[in-house]
Amino acid sequence: MHLRTTLEQIKPLNQEAMATARHHQNLLAIPQGSLGRLHDLCIQLAGITGDPRPGLRHLAVVTMAGDHGVTRQGISLFPQAVTREMVANFTRGGASINVLARHFNVRLTVVDMGVAGPPLDICIIPDQSRQDLPIRLLHHRIGDGTADISEGPAMTREQAVYALETGIAVFEQEKARGLHAIGTGDMGIGNTTPSAAMAASLLGEDPACLINRGTGIDDCALANKGRIVARALEVNRPDPEDPLDVLTKVGGFEIGGIAGLMLAAAAHRVPVMVDGFISTSAALLASKFHPEVKHYLFSGHQSAVEGHGLMLDHLGLTPLVDLGLRLGEGTGAVYGLSILASASRIAQEMLTFEQAAVSLPNAETGQRG
Amino acid sequence: MHLRTTLEQIKPLNQEAMATARHHQNLLAIPQGSLGRLHDLCIQLAGITGDPRPGLRHLAVVTMAGDHGVTRQGISLFPQAVTREMVANFTRGGASINVLARHFNVRLTVVDMGVAGPPLDICIIPDQSRQDLPIRLLHHRIGDGTADISEGPAMTREQAVYALETGIAVFEQEKARGLHAIGTGDMGIGNTTPSAAMAASLLGEDPACLINRGTGIDDCALANKGRIVARALEVNRPDPEDPLDVLTKVGGFEIGGIAGLMLAAAAHRVPVMVDGFISTSAALLASKFHPEVKHYLFSGHQSAVEGHGLMLDHLGLTPLVDLGLRLGEGTGAVYGLSILASASRIAQEMLTFEQAAVSLPNAETGQRG
Repeated sequence: MHLRTTLEQIKPLNQEAMATARHHQNLLAIPQGSLGRLHDLCIQLAGITGDPRPGLRHLAVVTMAGDHGVTRQGISLFPQAVTREMVANFTRGGASINVLARHFNVRLTVVDMGVAGPPLDICIIPDQSRQDLPIRLLHHRIGDGTADISEGPAMTREQAVYALETGIAVFEQEKARGLHAIGTGDMGIGNTTPSAAMAASLLGEDPACLINRGTGIDDCALANKGRIVARALEVNRPDPEDPLDVLTKVGGFEIGGIAGLMLAAAAHRVPVMVDGFISTSAALLASKFHPEVKHYLFSGHQSAVEGHGLMLDHLGLTPLVDLGLRLGEGTGAVYGLSILASASRIAQEMLTFEQAAVSLPNAETGQRG
Repeated sequence: MHLRTTLEQIKPLNQEAMATARHHQNLLAIPQGSLGRLHDLCIQLAGITGDPRPGLRHLAVVTMAGDHGVTRQGISLFPQAVTREMVANFTRGGASINVLARHFNVRLTVVDMGVAGPPLDICIIPDQSRQDLPIRLLHHRIGDGTADISEGPAMTREQAVYALETGIAVFEQEKARGLHAIGTGDMGIGNTTPSAAMAASLLGEDPACLINRGTGIDDCALANKGRIVARALEVNRPDPEDPLDVLTKVGGFEIGGIAGLMLAAAAHRVPVMVDGFISTSAALLASKFHPEVKHYLFSGHQSAVEGHGLMLDHLGLTPLVDLGLRLGEGTGAVYGLSILASASRIAQEMLTFEQAAVSLPNAETGQRG
């Protein structure tokens, strides 16, 4: 589906389904509100899907990979080759996201959105512990990594549209396989730099508030990263009111792909679990394309890197877990997906006071819920 | 096993296994420390089990139920009959803990430690969605609920020993079924009152800091609850240096059972996931019996009720999730168990830099991990 058509299909949450879901939550045989955020998740899920008690059986995480010309400015701890090496690791099932996706019963799709070097010609070894769900590697190479954003735009406007529409197409493939909720993930050495530049531009925040150590750079490299992000914004002057311009000038192929996937999910009324820093910058971009998108999003986890909280505040999202992760790949998203799915099962499987024949509260000692 | 024998078998964590686990975590093909708390969980699991990379395949939660004479003082929102009704609900698979245990693949055992009324004669309907793991209901009725702690001791010293030894026996049965980690849970209308009294006594804290709304009482009932807890401590004068005295005078049958289960788990070097307020008061009790116990404990979640954080601080535990739950039953423990099991899979299944052929960090931009 084209970007424009996708944007046209994004609608507000279904208020009627939310009211029905809220009513149902209040009938469950527990003290009112005692399941905390699980109640809110159930209600938002109802608004997203239009079903007051939706089932979330089929869960997927899509990890988008891409390289970044700006890595030659020494902004990352790791050499660029690691992007490619980690994609290979994903296909062998040996990375964190593989392990966690298996653990939480989430299928994994990896997309090459523009990893540097020759096209990845990797023999995919089926995941031994999940024969039913081998890892998929999709080839959608938009370029040989982006250009160096500290010297000019990351990509052309056409490439930016293509990145978004690739994300839309990947979502639609996942949907066709059976999908009730989707998580996002990223792999791209150096990609906290374009993410910080995008977020600073879109939010009108001081870039210094969005700079972090990424994979673990030292003070000196951190100061350099700050200068590089500032220079990228100065050289490119992205227009914060034109999200396509922001993606073109200071974005990344995989970040555009993730944003496109979020737009498509919102258009198809499928909940999205946002991973950490990079995915959240993509969420800011997607929300600039359409303000309703943010109601289709959940934050999987609080990243340990600086600046993530600021982005979440702007989106009005509260992370579901805080385990000190700062890895990306979709690792925070799968934790969130498992919690979201647990909430949907509460709505589907718990008995009410009446069904379970449990006595109601005493009127005289109760407070209003 | 007797209480004394169990206490004698509790030993410190295995430092050698922890060092090996720490070394292994540093070899994994990720930026150093980027899996945050998952690394710490892996290292503690190694110390507990003695295995540097233990598998946590068999998970169980044990929900202990009991009634409390003090409910007649109007300290709970719900009538006492609800304890019994909820135990029936557990056996039908319709309660929150059933749904969440199914979702996270945790088997559930419910123990009647002293529910008021005639012995529960419930036909257990196998859990339709988990035929392989029907819910077990064990009968270990120590009494017809405890006595009213605002007027005298909750139970006799013999009953307190029996409650603890029942917990030990239940643990050992679970262990015999195959068990790699265990979660605790409780069901007992009014049991935040004895839990608060126990914690205030054991910690030497002002009881006012441990009083909360429980299932949702109003301001007036809250003030009354504060008076009742103060009176229970005044009337009984439990000796904080004698945990058996604390359990006898201001405890509960299910709280003693949970504490016994924790002692047995530590003796058998099995990790324990502590649920919320009630289970944490049992953890304080168990830690008073033996100070090493706390190293075998993990906190599943931050309860939304007041006072839980104070207890956790004393134990040095940091909750794994904060979803605003305030329900008990073991609901917070199962979230924690699933995270703990995910950490063990990271240790077991992830590839190292060398195995995955991933390049090491650049020396010049790195900070010390």
